[in-house]
Amino acid sequence: MRWSEIGEQPCSVAKTLAVVGDRWSMLVLREAFLRTRRFDDFQRNTGAPRPVLAERLKKLVDDGVLERRPYGNHPDRYEYRLTEMGRDLYPVIVSLLRFGDRWLLDGDDPPLELRHECGAVGHPELACPACGEWVDARDMTVVDFEHLPARAS
Amino acid sequence: MRWSEIGEQPCSVAKTLAVVGDRWSMLVLREAFLRTRRFDDFQRNTGAPRPVLAERLKKLVDDGVLERRPYGNHPDRYEYRLTEMGRDLYPVIVSLLRFGDRWLLDGDDPPLELRHECGAVGHPELACPACGEWVDARDMTVVDFEHLPARAS
Repeated sequence: MRWSEIGEQPCSVAKTLAVVGDRWSMLVLREAFLRTRRFDDFQRNTGAPRPVLAERLKKLVDDGVLERRPYGNHPDRYEYRLTEMGRDLYPVIVSLLRFGDRWLLDGDDPPLELRHECGAVGHPELACPACGEWVDARDMTVVDFEHLPARAS
Repeated sequence: MRWSEIGEQPCSVAKTLAVVGDRWSMLVLREAFLRTRRFDDFQRNTGAPRPVLAERLKKLVDDGVLERRPYGNHPDRYEYRLTEMGRDLYPVIVSLLRFGDRWLLDGDDPPLELRHECGAVGHPELACPACGEWVDARDMTVVDFEHLPARAS
């Protein structure tokens, strides 16, 4: 299977990866949540080669994650902002951040912290939408495989 | 900047992407959370080319996300299981799933559902670790940029 076909898998993880699953796109998203909006700033802060960045921004706009808005002319200039759909990728970016802070810093301080409007500093965590308990993989089971290909037993 | 250098950025998102940021690795993780353990099952369920899959599994083992355990011999056979570190990637996979279910199904039913041990079916959501309120991007601010390069103003 090729990556161009991955979004056709009957799997919401694969479909999301078809939109944001390459690493430059994820760094562009990180920047968008840090309020970066302009091409040169995305370029400096991600380190992406300019042609790669241009292609990724265009794809994120085409897929509905970012919107491109004019902010000047002579020459025309555009900035990129998260759409409502794009803002809903926040849990993906926060989860990547949380994991890196927890497992990959080798004792260094985290380079940034998140503060909730209640005043607390820390990583948002997953909770059950019904009972509100914190959840991890062992608290959850997968149901309804009818649409999926056969699995390992 | 090249991808081989991305884990050296002072950013926990980038460091995590250096471990699991390619799409095949993410699909391998999805499978591991679905209890897939053997090479041929990973291959069938992800559609990854075998040499690519072998390389990704080796990297995930080297990085501490999966462990490789013998389960048979003549010939020797191995299976791959999530480590404690690997299980802590659950929020990343759940967040990808949640986004795809919400935005990318074009009206189709979700191919699978998650059930919490309380009995509720639904996607775990992010909540503040201190006050327990549900959070989205607009509820959080970023603090402590001292280690980061200059940002867009």
